[in-house]
Amino acid sequence: MSAPEIGFDVPAAIGMRIDEVATPALLIDLDAFELNVATLKHRLEAAGVRLRAHAKTHKSVDIARYQLAHGGAIGICCQKVSEAEVMVAGGIGDVMVSNQVVDPARIERLARLATRARILVCVDDSGNVADLAAAARRHDVTLECLVEIDCGAGRCGVAPGAPAVEIAQAIATAPGLAFAGLQAYQGAAQHIRDHAARAAAIATAAGHTADTLALLRAAGLDCAIVAGAGTGSYAFEAASGVYNEMQCGSYIFMDADYQRVRDARGEPIGEFANSLFILTSIMSKPRAGAAVCDAGLKVMSLDSGLPVVFDRSDIEYVNCSDEHGVLADPADRLALNDRLRLVPGHCDPTCNLHDWYVGLRGERVECLWPVSARGKSW
Amino acid sequence: MSAPEIGFDVPAAIGMRIDEVATPALLIDLDAFELNVATLKHRLEAAGVRLRAHAKTHKSVDIARYQLAHGGAIGICCQKVSEAEVMVAGGIGDVMVSNQVVDPARIERLARLATRARILVCVDDSGNVADLAAAARRHDVTLECLVEIDCGAGRCGVAPGAPAVEIAQAIATAPGLAFAGLQAYQGAAQHIRDHAARAAAIATAAGHTADTLALLRAAGLDCAIVAGAGTGSYAFEAASGVYNEMQCGSYIFMDADYQRVRDARGEPIGEFANSLFILTSIMSKPRAGAAVCDAGLKVMSLDSGLPVVFDRSDIEYVNCSDEHGVLADPADRLALNDRLRLVPGHCDPTCNLHDWYVGLRGERVECLWPVSARGKSW
Repeated sequence: MSAPEIGFDVPAAIGMRIDEVATPALLIDLDAFELNVATLKHRLEAAGVRLRAHAKTHKSVDIARYQLAHGGAIGICCQKVSEAEVMVAGGIGDVMVSNQVVDPARIERLARLATRARILVCVDDSGNVADLAAAARRHDVTLECLVEIDCGAGRCGVAPGAPAVEIAQAIATAPGLAFAGLQAYQGAAQHIRDHAARAAAIATAAGHTADTLALLRAAGLDCAIVAGAGTGSYAFEAASGVYNEMQCGSYIFMDADYQRVRDARGEPIGEFANSLFILTSIMSKPRAGAAVCDAGLKVMSLDSGLPVVFDRSDIEYVNCSDEHGVLADPADRLALNDRLRLVPGHCDPTCNLHDWYVGLRGERVECLWPVSARGKSW
Repeated sequence: MSAPEIGFDVPAAIGMRIDEVATPALLIDLDAFELNVATLKHRLEAAGVRLRAHAKTHKSVDIARYQLAHGGAIGICCQKVSEAEVMVAGGIGDVMVSNQVVDPARIERLARLATRARILVCVDDSGNVADLAAAARRHDVTLECLVEIDCGAGRCGVAPGAPAVEIAQAIATAPGLAFAGLQAYQGAAQHIRDHAARAAAIATAAGHTADTLALLRAAGLDCAIVAGAGTGSYAFEAASGVYNEMQCGSYIFMDADYQRVRDARGEPIGEFANSLFILTSIMSKPRAGAAVCDAGLKVMSLDSGLPVVFDRSDIEYVNCSDEHGVLADPADRLALNDRLRLVPGHCDPTCNLHDWYVGLRGERVECLWPVSARGKSW
């Protein structure tokens, strides 16, 4: 049987062998992916905390569904309203926008979305409360609001303590809104290499969160949700006794940068395996010691460094341009059309560059999953 | 009249005011864009060289058509076969793949494309010649082949001189192929800041190219096309007397990094204006001196540095994460929902993150152009 024809619409077809997939392509090793999903499910069950998986990593309705069906997820997170719109259109019924929504037109879209799904959103500004409430009443929906506190990341979020309580009270008394809890994500801690330093950052965040919870309780406000955590830190939040909902995203795929994050023994955190790869081909062998592959920065985000060549310690990816990667090949082992797997530096923005996940079972393409919310940033 | 409804499909609608466009959005200032296109046309006409505009920058059929109709372009360049497939499907009739095509399935697609358009391709390997020729004969087409030489960039390309002549001779004698000339692009020179250093890099490249041309002529091989150059260096190639076809791409948009490239007086190269922007909104004002906007690294490539805030010397974009940008706002001038234009660090990979160009005439949306070949990398 000849291979199905590839054009500009898809880089692969179901049933193909991996060596027939057009390169560069975004691969998922389905065995590793499924194991990662199961691993986090079991760990969080054991810790007695919930998982609300972050869809900003994968932007895929298919993967969100898988996390809900098999990964213990009680819902998903999105960062953007357009992402949430794609997920709800794809049948996902429970979505937290783990971010501020303050633009009037965007608030309108969020309230409209709540006519079709459970919608939660984060708030860090008192003025935003009235705007969200007015939109919720216009659409006769309830928007569940979490107060986001800055627990150390220095990005969004109101200061912990009294300022957070003030916003929570405004939410609790606003018709159309329901106060759902605290968003306390320490994003800057996720990639801290050293285990003790990472633990300390989360201990600080959990302290701010616990203090704010106590003040809220004193004000008669219960937090159904105390949310945060990512792949690099979730073990700390899960064990803190403060958080009850984890928002891990990258654990399904991992990336080169997460492999640099260390556990207590100084080893790479070992519970998740690389399941995401860029498949690339050698397209030029211009001189001794070097080869050029067809995967550059339009198929991999460089924000967390260069990709790492998988399972080939003899080859190093040393320079990246828009459509090319230069490989150091000191023993001249590579030939034209040889194929390599690259582990991208940072999974989330890498997935956002692709239209398709090529799902592999062993050496065969088992599925093609669209990156449904790719580029949805508004 | 109320604004058209925005959903996840498009961030804007024709006729909208700029303050109604959903953010973040990729904007083209059409006046500046059209002026850039006209400027290069006139400069290259004056220099007596051709323009084959590089579509890797914009990946847009609409922009390619505009360059052909109004910009003096005799054809376009693409870097990928899938890009070329999109362009040919969009009606572009003359496409050079300024890159190697060595994978058997990809060669097959290239030859198939040549049944519908004039197709040129670059070669840096003798073995590739027979494969291209066999595919051309199978489809009864002619593939026009340029020999790519490494004239200093250290990426793809055979060594100048005799090795290039050897491949040219193989092409010239292969049924199904036509020898079209030399590809001598010095990509590494484009962003050299210093004018004299940039001039020297191109002088070296032109020297290698001239030497190779002399050897080819001695072997009875004429070069219809001597191609190379980009926005940072084209003035040197155009004046060299060696090159006759320029492959500029970024000139239509410019970016923050190209604004750091200097002319002979030490000033930014001044003939092209920034026409490409990320429109962003303030989504959080969490503390004094800082604001957070909704444009992060999923809407702008960071490979050439952070974006620059346009026309606001009082504000600086200081930190970028996946979906957020942290702005230094020392005088606390920014409020929620204020809007800014960002000049991205690097235009090509930034465009590749978006589905739509929002074309502005003054303050109104005049057109929505799809980024037709966005993500087409195989």
